[in-house]
Amino acid sequence: MKKLINKPDDVVTEALHGIAAAHPHLVDVHFNPNFIVRADAPVQGKVGLVSGGGSGHEPMHGGFVGMGMLDAACPGEVFTSPTPDQMLDATKAVDGGAGVLHIVKNYTGDVMNFEMAADLGKGEGIEVEAVVIDDDVAVQDSLYTAGRRGVGATVLAEKICGAAAEEKQSLSQVAELCRKVNANGRSMGMALTSCIVPAAGTPTFDLPDDEIEIGIGIHGEPGRERLKLAPAAEIVERLTRPILEDLPFEEGDNVLAFVNSMGGTPLIELYVVYNDLNRLLGERGITITRNLIGPYITSLEMAGCSITLLKLDDELTRLWDAPVKTTGLRWGA
Amino acid sequence: MKKLINKPDDVVTEALHGIAAAHPHLVDVHFNPNFIVRADAPVQGKVGLVSGGGSGHEPMHGGFVGMGMLDAACPGEVFTSPTPDQMLDATKAVDGGAGVLHIVKNYTGDVMNFEMAADLGKGEGIEVEAVVIDDDVAVQDSLYTAGRRGVGATVLAEKICGAAAEEKQSLSQVAELCRKVNANGRSMGMALTSCIVPAAGTPTFDLPDDEIEIGIGIHGEPGRERLKLAPAAEIVERLTRPILEDLPFEEGDNVLAFVNSMGGTPLIELYVVYNDLNRLLGERGITITRNLIGPYITSLEMAGCSITLLKLDDELTRLWDAPVKTTGLRWGA
Repeated sequence: MKKLINKPDDVVTEALHGIAAAHPHLVDVHFNPNFIVRADAPVQGKVGLVSGGGSGHEPMHGGFVGMGMLDAACPGEVFTSPTPDQMLDATKAVDGGAGVLHIVKNYTGDVMNFEMAADLGKGEGIEVEAVVIDDDVAVQDSLYTAGRRGVGATVLAEKICGAAAEEKQSLSQVAELCRKVNANGRSMGMALTSCIVPAAGTPTFDLPDDEIEIGIGIHGEPGRERLKLAPAAEIVERLTRPILEDLPFEEGDNVLAFVNSMGGTPLIELYVVYNDLNRLLGERGITITRNLIGPYITSLEMAGCSITLLKLDDELTRLWDAPVKTTGLRWGA
Repeated sequence: MKKLINKPDDVVTEALHGIAAAHPHLVDVHFNPNFIVRADAPVQGKVGLVSGGGSGHEPMHGGFVGMGMLDAACPGEVFTSPTPDQMLDATKAVDGGAGVLHIVKNYTGDVMNFEMAADLGKGEGIEVEAVVIDDDVAVQDSLYTAGRRGVGATVLAEKICGAAAEEKQSLSQVAELCRKVNANGRSMGMALTSCIVPAAGTPTFDLPDDEIEIGIGIHGEPGRERLKLAPAAEIVERLTRPILEDLPFEEGDNVLAFVNSMGGTPLIELYVVYNDLNRLLGERGITITRNLIGPYITSLEMAGCSITLLKLDDELTRLWDAPVKTTGLRWGA
């Protein structure tokens, strides 16, 4: 294992200290329990948005804390769910009197711990709702998940719901919007290489030098199939066809296309993938009206990519375009 | 070689088509010869900023084209200098009557071809100046370079000069500013792994599983020394000490600290590095007042990082903070 770290057990804590030192105008970092919170939290009268999950997916979620997106993020150890006390403290820190929404990726530990934190928060008089994101069409059940896994649509939900919360929409409205993003978003990912969890020190799975895995999870959970390495255009088709069929996306639809690096895949390859995706959708009469291209929900240094499509309407487009100011996404403000 | 590409020879062209499809409101992409130009170029009365170099370093330079940064970027094939005709056409496309500045990384092919393009541009009546960036303290001469290589300070020069050009500073003022950034910026990089050039198909160099290379170039040029894998804190010290001694940076200095991923190193490790760097500089009485952390000048999928320090004064800080709107850097607008 070659990584730029000191001790494997200290990676998350040291990275949080780095974030605290680098971005004091945007976020505060709390330790024991760990969470990252907007520097101006709580914003009075605004729904507070909290997400979280295992570390190793940066910039998600800590890089999405700030104006127009999350109010707080709870980082667990690498690929390990955060604990209810992190989520409870984050919930209390962002409660501005309008309630708190938990945006939860569908992994058993995350769901269970966020449920416990929500109960504890309610016990302290905070109105809490939770929405579970399960946009990955690759497999029905998985290593850490009953039902579908939550992946790329999480980033889009955090941005869009963050904009709605900034407009002072109510908790039930923001939660409904989050369910709408989840209902209209679908994803699938693939890996060229495994990642290495620092505490394990060895690759999470073995993938021969001439093979790829389609439908991989963001923690290296098994996908749909292993194939011999194929051209990007063929890989894009294998990722996109199940996404299109599942919703379904249809001729005339406008979509946000999110082409994501799993970490180790460089930007030049993502644009090759985007070019193939744009052509494939164009042939089916589907128009990409918004896009996001880069490493936003990663799996440490895994090489590979994921594609997320979100069916857009005027409301989702307007909220996507609204100002956002985080370390991971920033525009218009 | 496992990459998300179709044919190795088509990577750059297909990625440019992807960029053209993804960002039509920001940039236009010209083919044969290839260059990326601001959608609103030429801006009348503004100095035009042109940079370029081999592809494989994305988002540099194409991702830095837009308001407040570059007017055009000329991408060569992967790790291959662009040609004078690309540079000449880009120069003509961005000439708004106030002259054009070429920002050139110090690699022999880049320098020679930009000189030729400048001569051709002058022959067509365009005022052209060029500044060569040579901020890498690792080695004196290198595989493709007489003198020091140009690396991370290029990103900072493009941002700062872009802001000055946006203020309608004159060509001589913007060129002088570019020389000032270069004079006050120093960098060094390191690699954990090699990268693989698509057309070659095999690693550019061999690095054993337990070794790292300090002082590596962005095309895999040899560095200063090979070491056994070491903790991040020790690597940060080996990169930073030569940087500090060279300028020198001294107690009381304010600096911009740029912690860059070579491509394959994930963000969580960059924050571990930033944390160590922040502590090291603090111990020496040097204050980080601005920072940039992420993959900005990469070497395909190479794992590793580089550190760039830029000594700041009020002028450089103000121009760094000015609005910028590109796909790679964006704030305040």
